[in-house]
Amino acid sequence: MGRLLESYAVGTWHRAADEGRPVLDAVTGEEVARLSSAGLDLAAMVTHAKQVGGPALRALTFHERAGLLKQVAKHLGSVKDELYEVSFSTGATRRDTAVDVDGGIGTVFSIASKATRELPNDTVVLDGPPEPLGKGGTFLGQHVWTSRPGVAVQVNAFNFPVWGFLEKLAPAFVAGVPTIVKPAAQTAYLTELVVRRIVESGLLPEGSLQLLCGSPEGLLDELTVQDHVAFTGSAHTAGLLRTHPQVLHGGVELGVEADSLNCSVLGPDVRPGDEEFDLFVRGVVTEMTVKAGQKCTAIRRAIVPRERLDDVAEAIAARLAEVTVGNPRDEQVRMGALVSLEQRDEVRKAVQSLRASADVVFGDPDRVEVVGADAERGAFLSPVLLRARDGAVEPHDVEPFGPVSTLLAYDALEGPGGAVELAARGKGSLVGSVVTRDPEVARTVVLGLAPHHGRLLVLDRDDAAEARAAGGHGSPLPVLVHGGPGRAGGGEELGGVRGVLRHMQRTAVQASPDAMTAITGRWTTGARRRETDVHPFRRSLAELRIGDTIRSASRTVTLEDIEHFAEFTGDTFYAHTDEAAAQRNPLFGGIVAHGYLVVSLAAGLFVDPDPGPVLANFGVDALRFLTPVKAGDAIAVTLTVKQVTPRTSADYGEVRWDAVVTNADGAPVATYDVLTLVAKEWPTPPAG
Amino acid sequence: MGRLLESYAVGTWHRAADEGRPVLDAVTGEEVARLSSAGLDLAAMVTHAKQVGGPALRALTFHERAGLLKQVAKHLGSVKDELYEVSFSTGATRRDTAVDVDGGIGTVFSIASKATRELPNDTVVLDGPPEPLGKGGTFLGQHVWTSRPGVAVQVNAFNFPVWGFLEKLAPAFVAGVPTIVKPAAQTAYLTELVVRRIVESGLLPEGSLQLLCGSPEGLLDELTVQDHVAFTGSAHTAGLLRTHPQVLHGGVELGVEADSLNCSVLGPDVRPGDEEFDLFVRGVVTEMTVKAGQKCTAIRRAIVPRERLDDVAEAIAARLAEVTVGNPRDEQVRMGALVSLEQRDEVRKAVQSLRASADVVFGDPDRVEVVGADAERGAFLSPVLLRARDGAVEPHDVEPFGPVSTLLAYDALEGPGGAVELAARGKGSLVGSVVTRDPEVARTVVLGLAPHHGRLLVLDRDDAAEARAAGGHGSPLPVLVHGGPGRAGGGEELGGVRGVLRHMQRTAVQASPDAMTAITGRWTTGARRRETDVHPFRRSLAELRIGDTIRSASRTVTLEDIEHFAEFTGDTFYAHTDEAAAQRNPLFGGIVAHGYLVVSLAAGLFVDPDPGPVLANFGVDALRFLTPVKAGDAIAVTLTVKQVTPRTSADYGEVRWDAVVTNADGAPVATYDVLTLVAKEWPTPPAG
Repeated sequence: MGRLLESYAVGTWHRAADEGRPVLDAVTGEEVARLSSAGLDLAAMVTHAKQVGGPALRALTFHERAGLLKQVAKHLGSVKDELYEVSFSTGATRRDTAVDVDGGIGTVFSIASKATRELPNDTVVLDGPPEPLGKGGTFLGQHVWTSRPGVAVQVNAFNFPVWGFLEKLAPAFVAGVPTIVKPAAQTAYLTELVVRRIVESGLLPEGSLQLLCGSPEGLLDELTVQDHVAFTGSAHTAGLLRTHPQVLHGGVELGVEADSLNCSVLGPDVRPGDEEFDLFVRGVVTEMTVKAGQKCTAIRRAIVPRERLDDVAEAIAARLAEVTVGNPRDEQVRMGALVSLEQRDEVRKAVQSLRASADVVFGDPDRVEVVGADAERGAFLSPVLLRARDGAVEPHDVEPFGPVSTLLAYDALEGPGGAVELAARGKGSLVGSVVTRDPEVARTVVLGLAPHHGRLLVLDRDDAAEARAAGGHGSPLPVLVHGGPGRAGGGEELGGVRGVLRHMQRTAVQASPDAMTAITGRWTTGARRRETDVHPFRRSLAELRIGDTIRSASRTVTLEDIEHFAEFTGDTFYAHTDEAAAQRNPLFGGIVAHGYLVVSLAAGLFVDPDPGPVLANFGVDALRFLTPVKAGDAIAVTLTVKQVTPRTSADYGEVRWDAVVTNADGAPVATYDVLTLVAKEWPTPPAG
Repeated sequence: MGRLLESYAVGTWHRAADEGRPVLDAVTGEEVARLSSAGLDLAAMVTHAKQVGGPALRALTFHERAGLLKQVAKHLGSVKDELYEVSFSTGATRRDTAVDVDGGIGTVFSIASKATRELPNDTVVLDGPPEPLGKGGTFLGQHVWTSRPGVAVQVNAFNFPVWGFLEKLAPAFVAGVPTIVKPAAQTAYLTELVVRRIVESGLLPEGSLQLLCGSPEGLLDELTVQDHVAFTGSAHTAGLLRTHPQVLHGGVELGVEADSLNCSVLGPDVRPGDEEFDLFVRGVVTEMTVKAGQKCTAIRRAIVPRERLDDVAEAIAARLAEVTVGNPRDEQVRMGALVSLEQRDEVRKAVQSLRASADVVFGDPDRVEVVGADAERGAFLSPVLLRARDGAVEPHDVEPFGPVSTLLAYDALEGPGGAVELAARGKGSLVGSVVTRDPEVARTVVLGLAPHHGRLLVLDRDDAAEARAAGGHGSPLPVLVHGGPGRAGGGEELGGVRGVLRHMQRTAVQASPDAMTAITGRWTTGARRRETDVHPFRRSLAELRIGDTIRSASRTVTLEDIEHFAEFTGDTFYAHTDEAAAQRNPLFGGIVAHGYLVVSLAAGLFVDPDPGPVLANFGVDALRFLTPVKAGDAIAVTLTVKQVTPRTSADYGEVRWDAVVTNADGAPVATYDVLTLVAKEWPTPPAG
C-alpha cells in the first residue's frame, strides 16, 4: 500500500482521518500513494492564510519576498535528484521531468529577479505617471497597485506537478498573497514532496504556503472577495468553477488556463528541403511526444499548404516511427506513459471522435509496442497522426490530451490568409506558431492570429537554435504571458511582473501633491521641497529624504558658449551655428543652445564636486526639451529626491532625482530624471 | 402617445413591428416615448458589426480613429441644448445633465487626445520592452496588443444615458471594435437622440455604431469568443449575465460596473470648524442630491469618528434642509425626481431594510415637499439621512439607489484603522474618499482601502477647489480607471489608454529580431540595419525607413577633453578631475569622462549640420551609461531609425532613433533613444 499523502495546513502536517484512495504508478500500475483530505478543516486553512501568512508577507518589500524565493529555488535545486526519481512514476521521461522540475525552479528564479529589477524595494507599485486633474497643479491622479488581503488558491492539473505549482506560487508570493495549493490527484505525491522540502527549509513565512492533498470540495465556499482561484485543467471543469456561487456573486476572482487546440502553421514560402520545413516537422513531433502530448500548449492542429500535405505527413510519420515508447526509467525510451489508464481511455475516445472527419496516417490508438514495461498495466499509447478531410469540424473542437495531432490543409495560393482562418476556428488558444522565412508572412500570420492567442512563436533558421533551447512552441516562459482567450480560458499568468500585478488591485488615487507624496512614498511634482544647508549629494542613502532639494545658482548661456560647444563637440547643426538658417527653422527662429549643452551646464550647476555618498550618475530618463534656450538666457536647475531604492545585495542604492531646468522667466527649459547610485552609509567628514 | 423609439441596425433606422410599451416622464408621469425592438434581427446586427464596422475601423490607425471621435464630440457639443431639454424628462436638473452630457462629451475628447498622445499612429501597441530569450540575441519576446475582431455590446444603466454610452463607445472605437448600445428602458429616448445625431453627422464608419432600443433578449446568444459585453447596473442583473451560457462556456467577455456601497471617511484629525469638516459635509450632501442620488458612485456610508457623529449629523441635516426638491425645469429646484415611480418604491423598500439597524435623522421617505410639480405623479423623494446603531449589518449590504446615506461611527482613538475595517465590509466598491489634513492618515486610509476600491479621493483644503471642479467623490474621470472589485463588479473602464487596451488582446510574440521588426513595425535590437550613401538626417518622414542607420566615425576622448569639459560646464565632480579620489571610487577606479560629455560628443559624431528635414531633437529616453569612458578611449555611435510616428495635424512627425555609443572594444558605453521632429516632405536640394 502506498504512503498516505499529508496536507500542510495551519502550520502542521495533517494526516487524513481515513485510509484514502489509491493513486497508481502510470508505468507499472502499482499503488504509489494514497490520497485523502478527510478531517481537514478548510475554513481554518483560509483563515490561517489570511491572518498569519498574508500579514507576514505584506510586512516584507517586493525585493525581500523575491530574495526568499531565490533561496527556495536554490534549495529545490539541491534536492532535484529526489524529485527526478519520483517523477518517473508519473510516466515522465527525464526530458519531461526537466521541463517540470528545472522549468519550475527556473521560473521561480526568473520571477524573483524580474521583481528585484523592475519593482521598487517597497510594498506599493505605481502604474503610469501622475495625471494632472486641474490646471492649478493642486490636484492630481496616480494609479497604484496594492496587495490584496486575500488568499491565492491553486487548483492544478496533473501534467506539471512541480512547474504548475511553482509558476503560480512565485507571482502570488511576490505580490504578498499567501497560497493554498491543491494538486491534481494523479500526481499529488510529487507536489507534496516539493512542498515538504520547502516547508522543511523554513525559508518561507508561516502561512504563506499551505497544501491540500485530497478533495477541494467546500474550499470555494470559504472564499470571498479579495480571494483568487487559479485553475489549470479542462474547459469542462473550468465551466463548473465559473458557476460556483462565490464566483458568480461572492466576488471570488477566477483565472483559468484551459486546454486549447493550439496550432502550428507552415508558411506558404517553405519547401521540402528548406531548413524551415524540417523545423516545422520537428516541432510537431516534439509537441506530440514530450509529456506524451499531455500539455495544454501542445500542437493539436498542424496547418499546412495543401500542396505540402503529403510531404509533411510523410516526414512527421517517419520521425514518429523512430520514437520508442515505454518505461521512462529506460534510457532508450523517448516517450513515457500517459498519467493513468483513465486518461488513456479519454484520449482513445477523442481519437475516435476525430476520425469522423480525419484519417489516421500514423499510429494505432489501440496498440503500441512498449520497451521495459507491461503494455497493459501501464498507460501507454502510440503517437497518432491524423489528416483532416476537407471541411472537417472535429479537429477544431475535440482535444485529445495525449500524443495526438491532426494535419489540416489550407489554400496557400494567395498567401497565408486561409491558415489564419482555420486557426481562428479553435476559438482561442494558448499558443500558436508559424514557421516561415518570409517577414511578410510572419507579419500577416502573427497579426491575424494575435487576437486569438496568448503567445505566438515565429520560427525560422535564424532563431531556431535559441528557440529550441528555450523550449520551442510548447514552453511558456516566465518573462512572457501564458494564457489565452476563449477556449483557452481567458486567463493570463506569468509575463514577468505582469503576473505579480495580477494578484494586486489597481486603484486610481486622487489627491494633492503633498498627500500623494505621503501615500506613494515617491515625490510628486508640486509637493513640498525640503531645502537645507547641506547639499543633498552629501547625504547617504540612510539620510536622504524624499523631497530633499537643491536649487542651483543661475548661469547665463552666451553665444560664445554655444559656438564653443559646437566646435568642441563637433555638433555644428545649423540651429546652433547659422543665424540665418536657424531663423528659417519653424521651431526655433534663431540660434539656440544645444540640448546637450543645457543639461551639461545644469550638471555643472547642481553637482557637488568632492567625494561623497553619490557614487555615480548611471543614467537619465524622460529628458524633454520644452523651451529653446537662446544666447543671453540665464538658466538654473532644481534637483529633488523623487525615489530611493536600496539594493538588497549591495552597499548602495538607486536615487532618482527630479530635474527641472528653468530660464529667467521661470519657464521650464528641460525636465528629466537623473539616476544616481548612492552609498547606504557615509562617514561624517572628519573635522578640519 | 409618445414617439416610438427606433433602433439603428444594419445601416438603417428600424421601427418596431408593434406599438411598444410606454416610457413615462419622471417629473410629470406623462408618456414621453414608446419602446420596442419587435422584429429586430439581432443576429444581423452582430454580423453587420463584425463584417462591416470592424474591418472599417481596423483599416484606420489609432490616431485616425481618435480624430473621428474628436469630430463627433465637437458635433455633439453643437446640439447640446436639445439634449439638455430632453434630459429634464429623466428627472435631471441642469446640473445633473451637465454631468451626463458635458461629462460625456468631455470624456470622448479626453480619450481621443490621450490616444493621440500615448498610442502610436499605427494599429498595434507594444507592451513593455523586448525580452531577450537567449544569450545570442537571435531570439526575443515582445508583448503586443491587437484589436479583437469582435463586437462591444453595451448594456447600460438608466442614470447616465449620454455619459454611460459615450464613455464606453470611445475606448472601444479607438481600439477598433464596433459597438452595439442597448440603453436602459427608462431613459432610452435620450440615448436614441444622441445616436441619431451621431449617425446623421455621417462621421463614423458604417457598422461601427448600432443602437438597440428595446429588449436585449437573445442578443448574448449571438455573441461568441472575441465579443465583449460591458454591463452597468445592479449586482443582481450582473449575476444573471454571468450565468449566460455564452459567458460561461462561449468565451464572451463580460465587464461589470455594479452599484456599490461607497464610503467617505472623516479623518480623526478633523474638528468642527476646520475647512476639512465642511468639505466632508458638503461632499456627503452633494453625493446624496446630484442625480437624486442615483449614481453607482454616490456615498452610501459616511464613516466618522464616534465623537464627531452628532456634529456631522447635525451639519448634514442642516444642509439637506436647504435642498429644494421638485420639477428640474424650475430654476430654484436643486434636486429633481427619481427616474420612475418603480425606482422610488425600490428606494423606499431599501430604506425600510436599513431601518432594522439605523435610525432616520433627516427626511421622510414617504413624504416630500415638491416645487413646480405634482408630488404624486412625479417620482419625488426626500433626501434621507440615517444613523447606524452599533454593529449594524444592513448599511454594508443594502443599497438604496437614491438620495439616501447612512452615518457610521468608528473608534478613532488609535487612528483611522477602524474606519478602514468598516469600509472593507462593503466587499468592494467603486470609489471611496477620505477627508483629512494629516498625510499619515491619508497614507493609512488610502493603502488600507486601496485593495477594496477602484478609485480613492483624498480631500483637504489644498486640493478642494480643483477636486470640486473635477466633480469630487462621485465623478469618474476619463484619465482614471473606473470600476472596483467584488460587489462593484470586478470590472475596470476608462483610465486613458488602459480603457482602450481592454478591448484588445495582449499576446507574447517570440521571434528573431528581423521577424519581430517586420511584425511590430518597430526596429528591434539585433535586426538588420540599412546603411546607405545618404545620411538619414537628409531623408524626410516619407523617405525614412525603419532600420535606416548611420555609423559614425570614431573620436578619441582625451584627458584634455575631460578637463576642459569640467571647466567649461562647471561639472568638476571628483571622478572627472581628481585621479587619486577617482581611484578610490568603487565603480570607476580612475578618472572617467562625464556621461554628458559622451552623449555630447556622440551628437557631434552623428549630426548632419546643414538644414534638412530633421527639425529638432526634442528629447532623450532611457539613457544608461554602461561602461566608463577613460582618457584615450575611442568612441563611435550607431544611430538607427526605431519608430516613425507621423502627426496627423502637423507637417512633421516624430522619429525615435536607437543610439548606441561603443568604445574601441565594441563594448556599449551608452545606450539611449534620441527623439527628433522630422518634416513629412523635404524638397530635394537644388543642383549646385
